[in-house]
Amino acid sequence: MNQDYIKPDNWSIIEEGFDVERVKSSESLFSIGNGAMGQRANFEEMYSGQTFQGSYIAGVYYPDKTRVGWWKNGYPEYFAKVLNAPNWIGINVKINGEELNLHTCTAVKDFRRELNMKEGWYQRSFTAILKNEIEVKVKSTRFLSLDLDEVGVIKYEVTPVNQDANIVFTSYLDSGITNEDSNWDDKFWDTYDVAHKEHSAYILSKTMKTEFHVCTGMLNQIFLDDTAEEILPVVDSNETFVGLSYEVNAPKNTTASLVKYAGYTVSLNHKKEDLASASKTVLKQASESGFDSLLDLQKKAWSRIWEMADIVIEGDVKAQQGIRFNIFQLNQTYLGKDARLNIGPKGFTGEKYGGSTYWDTEAYCIPFYMATKDQHVARSLLTYRYNHLEKAIENAKKLGFDNGAALYPMVTMNGEECHNEWEITFEEIHRNGAMTFAIYNYVRYTGDYNYIPEKGLEVMIGIARFWHQRATFSTDKNKYVILGVTGPNEYENNINNNWYTNYLAKWCIEYCVEHLKKVEEEYASDHKRIIEKTKLTQKEVEEMLVVAEKMYFPYSEKHQVYLQQDGFLDKELITVSNLDASQRPINQKWSWDRILRSPYIKQADTLQGFYMFEDHFTKEELERHFDFYEPFTVHESSLSPCVHSIQAASLDRMEQAYTFYLRTSRLDLDDYNKEVEEGLHITSMAGTWMSIVEGFGGLRIKNDTLFFTPRIPKEWKGYSFNVNFRNQILKVNVSQEGTSFNLEGDQELLIVVDNKEVKITPNHLVTV
Amino acid sequence: MNQDYIKPDNWSIIEEGFDVERVKSSESLFSIGNGAMGQRANFEEMYSGQTFQGSYIAGVYYPDKTRVGWWKNGYPEYFAKVLNAPNWIGINVKINGEELNLHTCTAVKDFRRELNMKEGWYQRSFTAILKNEIEVKVKSTRFLSLDLDEVGVIKYEVTPVNQDANIVFTSYLDSGITNEDSNWDDKFWDTYDVAHKEHSAYILSKTMKTEFHVCTGMLNQIFLDDTAEEILPVVDSNETFVGLSYEVNAPKNTTASLVKYAGYTVSLNHKKEDLASASKTVLKQASESGFDSLLDLQKKAWSRIWEMADIVIEGDVKAQQGIRFNIFQLNQTYLGKDARLNIGPKGFTGEKYGGSTYWDTEAYCIPFYMATKDQHVARSLLTYRYNHLEKAIENAKKLGFDNGAALYPMVTMNGEECHNEWEITFEEIHRNGAMTFAIYNYVRYTGDYNYIPEKGLEVMIGIARFWHQRATFSTDKNKYVILGVTGPNEYENNINNNWYTNYLAKWCIEYCVEHLKKVEEEYASDHKRIIEKTKLTQKEVEEMLVVAEKMYFPYSEKHQVYLQQDGFLDKELITVSNLDASQRPINQKWSWDRILRSPYIKQADTLQGFYMFEDHFTKEELERHFDFYEPFTVHESSLSPCVHSIQAASLDRMEQAYTFYLRTSRLDLDDYNKEVEEGLHITSMAGTWMSIVEGFGGLRIKNDTLFFTPRIPKEWKGYSFNVNFRNQILKVNVSQEGTSFNLEGDQELLIVVDNKEVKITPNHLVTV
Repeated sequence: MNQDYIKPDNWSIIEEGFDVERVKSSESLFSIGNGAMGQRANFEEMYSGQTFQGSYIAGVYYPDKTRVGWWKNGYPEYFAKVLNAPNWIGINVKINGEELNLHTCTAVKDFRRELNMKEGWYQRSFTAILKNEIEVKVKSTRFLSLDLDEVGVIKYEVTPVNQDANIVFTSYLDSGITNEDSNWDDKFWDTYDVAHKEHSAYILSKTMKTEFHVCTGMLNQIFLDDTAEEILPVVDSNETFVGLSYEVNAPKNTTASLVKYAGYTVSLNHKKEDLASASKTVLKQASESGFDSLLDLQKKAWSRIWEMADIVIEGDVKAQQGIRFNIFQLNQTYLGKDARLNIGPKGFTGEKYGGSTYWDTEAYCIPFYMATKDQHVARSLLTYRYNHLEKAIENAKKLGFDNGAALYPMVTMNGEECHNEWEITFEEIHRNGAMTFAIYNYVRYTGDYNYIPEKGLEVMIGIARFWHQRATFSTDKNKYVILGVTGPNEYENNINNNWYTNYLAKWCIEYCVEHLKKVEEEYASDHKRIIEKTKLTQKEVEEMLVVAEKMYFPYSEKHQVYLQQDGFLDKELITVSNLDASQRPINQKWSWDRILRSPYIKQADTLQGFYMFEDHFTKEELERHFDFYEPFTVHESSLSPCVHSIQAASLDRMEQAYTFYLRTSRLDLDDYNKEVEEGLHITSMAGTWMSIVEGFGGLRIKNDTLFFTPRIPKEWKGYSFNVNFRNQILKVNVSQEGTSFNLEGDQELLIVVDNKEVKITPNHLVTV
Repeated sequence: MNQDYIKPDNWSIIEEGFDVERVKSSESLFSIGNGAMGQRANFEEMYSGQTFQGSYIAGVYYPDKTRVGWWKNGYPEYFAKVLNAPNWIGINVKINGEELNLHTCTAVKDFRRELNMKEGWYQRSFTAILKNEIEVKVKSTRFLSLDLDEVGVIKYEVTPVNQDANIVFTSYLDSGITNEDSNWDDKFWDTYDVAHKEHSAYILSKTMKTEFHVCTGMLNQIFLDDTAEEILPVVDSNETFVGLSYEVNAPKNTTASLVKYAGYTVSLNHKKEDLASASKTVLKQASESGFDSLLDLQKKAWSRIWEMADIVIEGDVKAQQGIRFNIFQLNQTYLGKDARLNIGPKGFTGEKYGGSTYWDTEAYCIPFYMATKDQHVARSLLTYRYNHLEKAIENAKKLGFDNGAALYPMVTMNGEECHNEWEITFEEIHRNGAMTFAIYNYVRYTGDYNYIPEKGLEVMIGIARFWHQRATFSTDKNKYVILGVTGPNEYENNINNNWYTNYLAKWCIEYCVEHLKKVEEEYASDHKRIIEKTKLTQKEVEEMLVVAEKMYFPYSEKHQVYLQQDGFLDKELITVSNLDASQRPINQKWSWDRILRSPYIKQADTLQGFYMFEDHFTKEELERHFDFYEPFTVHESSLSPCVHSIQAASLDRMEQAYTFYLRTSRLDLDDYNKEVEEGLHITSMAGTWMSIVEGFGGLRIKNDTLFFTPRIPKEWKGYSFNVNFRNQILKVNVSQEGTSFNLEGDQELLIVVDNKEVKITPNHLVTV
């Protein structure tokens, strides 16, 4: 770990003490979101120190120009970029004529942040002594409403401690913002109206090119010791800014507060000509409810989420805090309400990566959403890719494939590729396999086979065609090979015969053909429609199968392991434990060539395949591969430790599993990879959930049946989680003594625990 | 070939007829240069069609910000960019009130360009009918003086044909120029003074950051039918522009002309406060000499160059034109006068590639300059790298090497790396070997062994250390391997054990150690100094030798060839002849991944090694490797056909050698690679010279002796060339009947022709 300042707490993320060096890190960690919008924990008031401003609106992006060192054919001309949206949180504060600014004031005492995950709010409090010697206590509480998801609420309180104060609150909106990752001076927002009336104001702006129209609105209330004050604001506005300034005289020990209802209405959900009135309506509704009652609703809404999604860990506060932080952030990012959205790797906490959708969704996030939400949420995530199939076919065409072969983009917002490094964009093609795997995984879990004839099979055919065309025949090996790829381990580029990629390719073809047959037999009219649409011929199917059958897999007889890629054994096989700590993370210390020729693995690669296709291998094979690859794995991808944790658990190596668990669950809290400033690792948080449920709980689905092999780290007294399995909720409680199951619903459920069948009757606790 | 509009001519490059589609191509082909400055063949007068403006000053560059898709550790923060310099050629022309503009006028007849290579001038002539119905003949002649290398001269003549004309010439200077390759809006020039007096004007500007100060100056003269006219100009100027307008009334069939003396004085050669007066002085000197007498000097200067450098081909105009074009351009680019300069791949004809110095200089250009100039020119090119040794050591440090290991940059202007693609910058490390090879080659040719103890050995040690550290030990192979490189064939990236790289690495170490011993024995004080400076230990030397001795070389027993890299035989080995023409050049048609996994070779790679170390292999081995690799070679690098031509000749495959010769010598004239618009391929032109001298002539140096194996293409009657060998000039004349030698100098020379010793006495023709 690289930082340790977050106070352990079961339900809250807490920081105490002000440290300018931690500001950007905490801005990420204390981010809030409600699925529709998100906000980094930037200060409301002016701050002249280092900060990374970020306000984000789900689904609003900008197609930035692709600029690279040397252009390659096939690069996307534009790529979608996560946009920093107009600032709605700003409240500048002048006290006795001096600007409140934590970077320049004389002293900051009792600085504290709390992100209350149970109730869904964020609070910051501190006492500041200004240069003019006034001492003030400040408390700011804010949340993004889950009920009114176009509204954020801030209560900003100032209490003078040592003298009376003249306080001027300037609550403002600002659309003159930029992206931190903007390499160029292009502006992304075009502001076309700034207006105000009484205590309200709005800014209408639209994104350039994509023309998402957004109304950023606010409505302010002023209180003195909880009594509403009728103060007329002074207005300051320009082309991209509107501020309403309220002057309040607060005697010593009274509290002046500004409550700000603000947020976005967006043309994704309203007609653009209605945005201002929609904003006005929703802010009026919010202000009429008032801060307290909205906060009550917020607590209830989060309580409903936790009821289903919570994992309780007894006897280990840091582990408990970690898993709740992960579950909380996943729910802040994506609630499954809108089929146009997906789960960005940084959610609403940073700009990095651009685009919103990686293979992370299919490989890591779907199990979490399947088990903790209604089934339609996962189906909606699959449909997102179905809706992008035509674009995936176009994308493959750009790279020289034809006949309906589909290559899903590495990163996307609207189906188009958003990445622009050849070794990723063109070569990290294993992502394509994750799309088929997600369909398989979804059907396995939900039993909703209909998805395949309805939508899935077309996707599977496009992908199988891609693998068929992408493999080439090696006369030398008398096998099909897949040359020039980047595997999940991105610390290798342009390698040949990445075992994971080859294995997935073979499996995708075989799975597709298997279900082609099943659909032909059982869903004849769907089959007819699909064949007509895809023009798939029997000859093509047979050729595909030859490629699958004759696929090459690099293997070491000496080590009895599949090799991550051709030539892996030529490396200097020095384990991570022999690597000096000063050299890590290697992605921040080493030049790229050095990383590439090293044996170090960024994230599970061969082991990722063993995770996904566990049943294809024996426990001994898993153990051998784990022992071979784990010592070279640096886990510099957030997606790595969870897979290792699950596998260590299944190998009964609970100490190792626990270490990996802590690393995955507290990756951001403890900033293992020295980059939390840039935002949180949202998608890998679903991996953390898997580490407990699949790793420690040992949950598997085989033959429409839930299997468990419960294990528990020795550090824990117990843990419990819920899974929604085919519309019944099973509560699982594991302690050092045993495991108990409690089923909600109306049907009996036969499960398998430690290889023994157990019948669970609804509402009867069963202990094993 | 992709174009065929250049008229065959022994001494001139000629275009006839105006075609807007050819303008940019001709702007490259008709470029002029004098080693100190260069100018694309842009029109003097206003042209609203597609054009690529380019004026360049030797040694003047700008460190542009490196911007890439995804930053990698070790990238240079800035990279030197060839700068488009202030425009000095501009002469706008208004005729009876209408702007002369070949893109908009009613008709263009008799358009003709000629680049007279024998005499070193460029002329453009045409007849234009303007919209106002006046018909004018225009002739513009220009050259960059070799004698006054800060001066360019233009004579711009207009003759009205069908009516009297009122002509306004606006001769101007303009520093408000940009780079075509500028991805960003940064300005590269800062103009700080614009002044004029009578018929003269100047602009003082400096490059940003690098602060090269440049005075762009001009002095104009007006003539009517060769009679000087005293017309006062009207001045138009702004912050980055100054124009002097002359109004001339030219009756029908009289010729109004403007003679413009202009050019640059640069702070590389003058104190910056003296630039304007230096400019004034040199332009005054030029104008007092006058156009005709400067042109006479120009003819004489070129005559001296040709005397030594010319290659005469009888019976094949296109081949003759090709080789002269190559020799001419090389001499326009680099004359060996200034040790700070080098030979840019595009010379003074375009911006592409940035920086000026590639490994092309060491691998391709040095032989040409050794044989056609004084020995000091090649020594100066070697010294250029010696002077950059510290920077090369710093560069290696950035990539994690230590202890004095040196990695020369892929591209440079001042010793710093200018490239920013990881697969090139960090991985195309074979360039390092070319530095040592050039030293070996220089000493072999000139016999100037002193260069090694004086300067070369330090460079060789830094390079040997790099290879020592860069190789890693493969337990699996029980050999040293070099992983993750890009070979000369840039259509492979991040490959393992590129045979050429491994071979060069081994050789560099061994050559270095061999000469360490020799210097220790024969130059003890130099040895002491070098050991003290480099802190080289015997232990390190021994370790190096182990790496060299145990170096791994991929080899196919089946094909009995060294493999270009590990895994080459896994590719679909479909030869270029089976590749549809519509797919070529593949670098313009295919996405990068497809190129990488294909077997296609951009330029000689394994064969490059066979070229450089010919004596290490048997003829049978060469033939086997040539037959294996040549069919996969697409020659999409300009540096490829020459090596193949030389090898085909040495294998007695004269038809093939001749085809490759035409391709290399007319690469730009016939635009084989569809990119001549961007500029000429200057460095490969030295390869063309090698194709004749080393290929057809069979020149080799062994044991301080010249060897020849003369061959002649059946298409030719004869050819002749000169080589300066150790300060004596040997003229070689090859015909279908035999070869004759004529030696200038005062010492007898023993040469070997077709494996027989021949004694050549000065000034006695010897025919073999």
